[in-house]
Amino acid sequence: MFPKGSGNPDAEIIGIGNEVVSGLIQDSNSKFLSEQLQTVGVNVSRFTAVGDEESAIVDSLRSALKRVELVFITGGLGSTHDDITKTVLARFFDSEFRQDKQVTDHLNDLFKARGREVPPSVQSQWQVPEKAIILYNEKGTAPGLCFKEKGKTVYVLPGVPLEMEHLFEKYIRPTLSSAGNQQITHRILHTTGITEADLWSKFGPIEPLQNLATVASLPSHLGVRIRLSVLTKDEAEAESRLDAAEALLRAKIGEYIYGRDGETLEGSIGKLLLSKHLTLATAESCTGGLIGHRLTGVSGSSEYFLEGAVTYSNQAKMRRLGVKKELLDQYGAVSREVALAMAAGIRESAGADLGLSVTGIAGPTGGTKEKPVGLTFIALSDGKNSDCHKFVFHQDRARNKERAAQAALNLLRLWLINHE
Amino acid sequence: MFPKGSGNPDAEIIGIGNEVVSGLIQDSNSKFLSEQLQTVGVNVSRFTAVGDEESAIVDSLRSALKRVELVFITGGLGSTHDDITKTVLARFFDSEFRQDKQVTDHLNDLFKARGREVPPSVQSQWQVPEKAIILYNEKGTAPGLCFKEKGKTVYVLPGVPLEMEHLFEKYIRPTLSSAGNQQITHRILHTTGITEADLWSKFGPIEPLQNLATVASLPSHLGVRIRLSVLTKDEAEAESRLDAAEALLRAKIGEYIYGRDGETLEGSIGKLLLSKHLTLATAESCTGGLIGHRLTGVSGSSEYFLEGAVTYSNQAKMRRLGVKKELLDQYGAVSREVALAMAAGIRESAGADLGLSVTGIAGPTGGTKEKPVGLTFIALSDGKNSDCHKFVFHQDRARNKERAAQAALNLLRLWLINHE
Repeated sequence: MFPKGSGNPDAEIIGIGNEVVSGLIQDSNSKFLSEQLQTVGVNVSRFTAVGDEESAIVDSLRSALKRVELVFITGGLGSTHDDITKTVLARFFDSEFRQDKQVTDHLNDLFKARGREVPPSVQSQWQVPEKAIILYNEKGTAPGLCFKEKGKTVYVLPGVPLEMEHLFEKYIRPTLSSAGNQQITHRILHTTGITEADLWSKFGPIEPLQNLATVASLPSHLGVRIRLSVLTKDEAEAESRLDAAEALLRAKIGEYIYGRDGETLEGSIGKLLLSKHLTLATAESCTGGLIGHRLTGVSGSSEYFLEGAVTYSNQAKMRRLGVKKELLDQYGAVSREVALAMAAGIRESAGADLGLSVTGIAGPTGGTKEKPVGLTFIALSDGKNSDCHKFVFHQDRARNKERAAQAALNLLRLWLINHE
Repeated sequence: MFPKGSGNPDAEIIGIGNEVVSGLIQDSNSKFLSEQLQTVGVNVSRFTAVGDEESAIVDSLRSALKRVELVFITGGLGSTHDDITKTVLARFFDSEFRQDKQVTDHLNDLFKARGREVPPSVQSQWQVPEKAIILYNEKGTAPGLCFKEKGKTVYVLPGVPLEMEHLFEKYIRPTLSSAGNQQITHRILHTTGITEADLWSKFGPIEPLQNLATVASLPSHLGVRIRLSVLTKDEAEAESRLDAAEALLRAKIGEYIYGRDGETLEGSIGKLLLSKHLTLATAESCTGGLIGHRLTGVSGSSEYFLEGAVTYSNQAKMRRLGVKKELLDQYGAVSREVALAMAAGIRESAGADLGLSVTGIAGPTGGTKEKPVGLTFIALSDGKNSDCHKFVFHQDRARNKERAAQAALNLLRLWLINHE
């Protein structure tokens, strides 16, 4: 949060909807707005969520306007009888309605493309409060609204996250960015393959880093995100301080960092494979296709990802990957030997440069004393060399699969970085 | 929500923490509490989130106590200097502190097990407000608190979801369940393969359903969830009304319903395959392994899922699935003909009873006028018969993949239901 007296405006966020206060859906809009508002110098001090009820909406808005100059309202702009936000706000600001031509045209075009007339229920969307500035919504039917009165500003946005984010980026960010406030600039570094405690102990004294930026570390079962934040009016200064902080981190724990901000592990791998002109094939057992799913989530992955084999049964491991029956009999499907044979087998049969394989016991059943649930072998083969790592994950089936896929992708990333 | 005048108590939830209002973490506690409180007859009318600041905490609590008789506070009970909830609440209720023996013993035991003394910062946890009833927390270091004054009750719970849920189940649910309030019982039916509008138009007049239960429908890009709720003191009556409502829905739109409450599409398919003693193999192109990942998310899936082929390249489609080059040349990889050949090919080569295939253009690139982004063919083969369906999805790469996987699994489900 911003220090008191920074001169930046405070804001509150009000979410409207029975489905939110009854716990039917998770309100993610307030988190998004608060995070984004910080980057344009606005500090959010309170969230409120109320049902679709006039007295509760008016009461929460009136209270918020006593405390802050900026209020963001989300939800209740749809076309069903529950959605009363627009009517309530018009009444609050003592405004008549008018038909908006641009909204009317947009709705006519939208439904024409589907070969239909605008349904009567949706027609109410082209009626807008006279006193509102209209935020035209290309991603949906409900326009956003902006009311300004007595030095206070109230933004009203649809509850559908996609539409809310669209209007935030189109109208609100540009307006607030140009207000000349101190702004927070964030940078996130994504790490994996190391625990939070080990990461910071490996990094050493944190003060030099804290002299450059505010540091937050956010662990999950797939890795630790490090968030660096700088508060300043000077964008160039923010960037240079973040660059310096990132350089400090990379010098000490660089091998664990796979990406920055919106980058993903599979995206980083895609760039490395492309730049090295290498192709990849995967053989998955316990991950069941998750590695292929993640790799193909990257647009353009058909350039380097040739194919994947989800060899769940021993038969499939033998037939598709040429794993020898003797290996399976002697060591079992979940073993170093079979993982290595799978990686070599998929590489060869797919004609790829690299073969990546996973075999493990996802659980909750199938474990033994020697081979517990969570035991996983991950292997990589490039035709000349091969490598196999053993892991034991201690979580439920879903998380064990996720951790195995993450570890496999990270192994591949490290191989690509360390091999010419 | 409960009808007005049901005699049930209203509640509000206040979340405390800078990390929540600054958008660093998502507050999931309010959603959990609201959903659970409904099942014990308590209606939540408002959520508020404020930072770790005394004036904001006191202001939000005072306002809430004016409106309702039950307030739940989460967060700010930890051992760092930011955590001021306990101190603020003690001051609010004008209470001194005392050392609690049971909390002291628990902390001593906890740290002894780790071979350590209780650190000074954590020792503050055994100091509790004299006026509070203590909610002993076996899952963490911070006890919960309950204050009662002038007919109002304030519960104060830790912000860590695991600990909050533990104290809710241990103390709050039993207390509120025995209060003799009307309780809400929910049932969720999961549908897919039909839009919300078409679903309800196919269902016809909704009044007979509404006479049995309150109905909410929640659309997403993967389907529509229908939530049925019954408010009554009599659990048996609730179940029989929900059964009757479910029967009405199943009679009209049963083919679209794939599960109830916690059931998943892949879980339902698993049960069908097991009961029919059938095995399955999959050939995925644009979904990249997502179907295999979902099928293998079900514990025990190795009983019926033999293998999957992620045949991203044409080479792989020919080599692994025996798709003829002429077919690929004449119709292209994204075509009815190739989808059918993929399904037949994987079925045969895997030795499975059923082959399921998907080929499509996930986007954002790769589309043409004749074959736009989102075009997807899904085919199923049982050796004698085969079937292929065409879809055009209109979303981004990630959602097109998700929708294609969902449609493929649903096609399989329908086949399993309709074939003996």
